[in-house]
Amino acid sequence: MSEIMEFELSKEFLEHFNPAVEERKDDFIRETLEGVNPADITELLEEFDAEDSKYVLELLDPEVGSRVIIELEEDIQSHFLEHFTSEEIAVFLDHLDSDDGVHILNGLPISKREEVITLVENEEKAGYLLDLLRYEDDVAGGLMAKELIKANHNWTIQRCIDEIRKQAENVQKIYSVYVVDDNGILLGRVSLKRIILAEDNAKIADIYDEEVIAVETYVDEEEVVQTMQKYDLEALPVVNVRGKLVGRITIDDVLDVITEQAEEDIQMMSGISSDVEEDDTVWIISKARLPWLVIGLVGGLLGAKFISLFETEIAIVPAMAFFIPLITATGGNVGIQSSTLIVQGLANSSVFSNSIFRKLVKMLAVAIVNGVILAIIVFGIVIFSTSDQTIAITVSTALFSVVLLASFMGTITPLILNNLGVNPAIASGPFITTANDLLGLAVYFFVAHQLYGL
Amino acid sequence: MSEIMEFELSKEFLEHFNPAVEERKDDFIRETLEGVNPADITELLEEFDAEDSKYVLELLDPEVGSRVIIELEEDIQSHFLEHFTSEEIAVFLDHLDSDDGVHILNGLPISKREEVITLVENEEKAGYLLDLLRYEDDVAGGLMAKELIKANHNWTIQRCIDEIRKQAENVQKIYSVYVVDDNGILLGRVSLKRIILAEDNAKIADIYDEEVIAVETYVDEEEVVQTMQKYDLEALPVVNVRGKLVGRITIDDVLDVITEQAEEDIQMMSGISSDVEEDDTVWIISKARLPWLVIGLVGGLLGAKFISLFETEIAIVPAMAFFIPLITATGGNVGIQSSTLIVQGLANSSVFSNSIFRKLVKMLAVAIVNGVILAIIVFGIVIFSTSDQTIAITVSTALFSVVLLASFMGTITPLILNNLGVNPAIASGPFITTANDLLGLAVYFFVAHQLYGL
Repeated sequence: MSEIMEFELSKEFLEHFNPAVEERKDDFIRETLEGVNPADITELLEEFDAEDSKYVLELLDPEVGSRVIIELEEDIQSHFLEHFTSEEIAVFLDHLDSDDGVHILNGLPISKREEVITLVENEEKAGYLLDLLRYEDDVAGGLMAKELIKANHNWTIQRCIDEIRKQAENVQKIYSVYVVDDNGILLGRVSLKRIILAEDNAKIADIYDEEVIAVETYVDEEEVVQTMQKYDLEALPVVNVRGKLVGRITIDDVLDVITEQAEEDIQMMSGISSDVEEDDTVWIISKARLPWLVIGLVGGLLGAKFISLFETEIAIVPAMAFFIPLITATGGNVGIQSSTLIVQGLANSSVFSNSIFRKLVKMLAVAIVNGVILAIIVFGIVIFSTSDQTIAITVSTALFSVVLLASFMGTITPLILNNLGVNPAIASGPFITTANDLLGLAVYFFVAHQLYGL
Repeated sequence: MSEIMEFELSKEFLEHFNPAVEERKDDFIRETLEGVNPADITELLEEFDAEDSKYVLELLDPEVGSRVIIELEEDIQSHFLEHFTSEEIAVFLDHLDSDDGVHILNGLPISKREEVITLVENEEKAGYLLDLLRYEDDVAGGLMAKELIKANHNWTIQRCIDEIRKQAENVQKIYSVYVVDDNGILLGRVSLKRIILAEDNAKIADIYDEEVIAVETYVDEEEVVQTMQKYDLEALPVVNVRGKLVGRITIDDVLDVITEQAEEDIQMMSGISSDVEEDDTVWIISKARLPWLVIGLVGGLLGAKFISLFETEIAIVPAMAFFIPLITATGGNVGIQSSTLIVQGLANSSVFSNSIFRKLVKMLAVAIVNGVILAIIVFGIVIFSTSDQTIAITVSTALFSVVLLASFMGTITPLILNNLGVNPAIASGPFITTANDLLGLAVYFFVAHQLYGL
C-alpha cells in the first residue's frame, strides 16, 4: 500500500468519535486509533476533557499512551496528569526516554516527583531520571537524554552491533554511536552509515571520527541551539567537566526550544509579561497584559503633566496640540525599528561584530537619512495645508530631532540591557515606546517654545 | 585524544591569521585550517573581503570549500560568488547536495544559472539541479534534496547495503532508507538501526515500516515545518502527485526556515519592510524602514487634521490636549497585545480552535477587565492631582472605550489579514498602532465634546 499516513483530524471524524467516547465503546475506539501516530492522538485528545482523555488513553498501549502525553502542551499536560496516580505516571515514564520523562516529572508537584521515580520499574531508567532532575531545564543537562549508544574504542564492529541490538529497545532513535575510552571519556563518534559499511571485525578505533562536537552539562540552552544549528547536527553529545559522556541532546528538543524562544521574544516585544496563550483564562490573559499597560499609563500621565506646563502656550496657539500624536508615534516607530535591528544583530552576532561605537555611528547615519526625508515631507504638507511657516518649521525640526533621539534610545537600550544580562527583546516593546513618547514631547515643546518665543 | 573539537575564533587567532592572508602564506593557512569545521571557516572568512576570502577558499579542498560557501549568509554568499567564474561555481556544486546546490544557483543571475549547470561534471547532479530549479523556494519541492537512499521492496538487506555503499559518497547523511515499488512509488521506510539489526538475507518487504509521513512537492514550507515538528522527524520524504518519491527534506533546512520566519515576523511587527540586517548599508536599512515611517507620518498628519477640528475647544480647555499621548499610547499598546496573541494563536491553531466569535467574546472580556482597571487608576490619579471632575470622567471614559476598540481592532485585523492570505504578523506592527492612534483620538474628542458640551 502506498498511502501517505497522515491522519486527517476532520469535523466528520470527530462527529463519529465523540459519541463513541461518551458511550465508552472500547473496541471501536481501540480499532479507530490503531496505528494512528501519537501526535495525532494528542491533537484529538485536546478536544476532550481530562476524564474522557484519560479513558481513551487507558485503552491504548502504554507505549503509545506515553508518547501521546509527552506531545501535550505543557499546561494541558500538567493539568491532565493531576488525574493520574503516581503508579500510572510511573508506567508512562517506563516507556519514555529520560529527557521526556524528566519533562513530565518537572510538571509534577515536587513532593510527588521522588515517589513517582521509586515506582518506575526499570531501575536504570529510574536512576537516569534522578540524575536528570538535578539540572535546570534551560541548560544542556536539562535538555539531554541519558539513553544513547556508547561503544568502547577497543570494540570490534560486531561487538558494537551486538550492543546496539541490546540497547535497541531503550534508544528510540540512533543517529550515531559515541565512542568512549575505558573511563567513559568521549573520544569521538561513528555514524550508523559507517557501521553498516564496515567489516564486522574492523575495530571501532580504526573508523571513528575524532572531530565530535560536544557541550558540557552547564551550557545554556541558547548556546546549545546555536551550536546545533551552526554545525547542522541532529544530535549533540553532552559531557561533564571531566569530559565523560553523560547524555545527548536530540534535534527535536532543540526545535521546541527555538519555537518557544521566538514566541517569548515576540510576547516581550508586545508587552505581554508571562507566557500566555489565547486559550488561557480571561483572568490570566488580563493579568499578563496589565503590567505594561499600567507602565504605559504612567508614561501617559507623566506626559500629561509635562504638556500641562505649556497650558498657556496651548491656549494661545492650539495648533501646537495638533501634532502631538505625530511626534509621539514617529518616535515610537523609529525606536522599535532601531531596537529590533539591534536585538536581531545581537542574536546573530559573531565575536567580531561591530563595536558599539560603530553601531551607533551607523544608526545615526540611518536616522539622519530617514529624519531628513520625513522632515521634508512634513514641512511640505504642513506649509501646503496651513501656510503657517512657524508651525511647519517647529514640527519638522522637532520630528527630525525625535527621529535622531529615538534611534539613539532604540540602539543603546537593548545594548545596555544585554550587558546587564536582561533579554534585550524587552527593549523593543512598550518600554521603548513609553520612553520615546516622553522624549518626543519634550523635544517638541522645547522646539516650539524656542521658535514661538512664547 | 579526548578534545572537544570546537574551534575558538578568538581575537588572538585573527591577529595571527590576518597577516598570513595578506602575505599569502599558503602553507601556513592550509595547515591552520586543516580539519577545522567548514562552519567555523565561514565565520572566519566573514571577517575578510571577497578577494581575500576567495584566496583562502582556493587553498582548501573543494569539498570543504563548498561547505564553507553554503554556510555563508545569503547576501554575503551572492555578493561573494560574483567573484567566481561559472566553472569555479560548478566545481562547488559538484561537491554539494542538490538542495544546497540549488540554493546557490538561486542566488545567481538567471542568465548564469543554466550555464553553471552545464558545467557541472556529475551528470546526475546536473539533472537534479535542473529538476529542483523548477520549484519555488518556499514549497517542499524547493527545500528538498534529490539525494537519498531508495530501496526496492523486493530487495534483500544485503542488496540494500550494497546500494548504500554505492551511494554513500553522494548522500551525506542517511537517516532512513526509503522503500519504493517498481514504479518508484513510496511505500515506506526502514531505519538504519533496523538494517543493522536485520539478517543479511532478510527481505526489505518484511521489515519496512509502512507508516511513513510524506509531503507533496507543492506543500508550503510552513506546513513542512509543522509536519516535521509535530511528528519529530529528522527527514521528510517528498512525493509527486502520483506518490512517486522525488526527494527528501532534512531537519537542518527546516531549522533555517523556522529561524528565518521568526525573524521576518519580528521585523514585520517592527515596521521594517524587507529582510535587512544590522550589517547592511545605511541606504538599504533606511529604505527598509521608511515605508512604515511614512505611513505613520500620514496617520499623524490625519490625526493633526482631526484634532484641528477641535481648535476652539482646545483654546478654551487646553487640558484636553494634555491626555492625547495617554490615549494614543494605550490604544497602541492594547492593540499590539491583542494582535500578538491572535497571531500566535493562528500559528498554533488546530482544526478545532475557537471560532472567531468565541475569540471576540474572550478578547472583549479581557478588554473589559483591563479597561475597567486602567480607567479606575486614571480616574483616581487625575481627580487627585487636578480635582477636575469633568476631565477625570472624560479621560477615564475615553480610555475605557479605547481599550475596548483597540482590542477589537487588534483581534479582528489579523484574522481578516489571515483570511486574505496576508501574513497576519503585519497587523501587530505600525499598521495597528497607526489605526489605533486615529481611533483613540476620535473616541477621546468625541467623549470630551459630549461631556464638556462645547
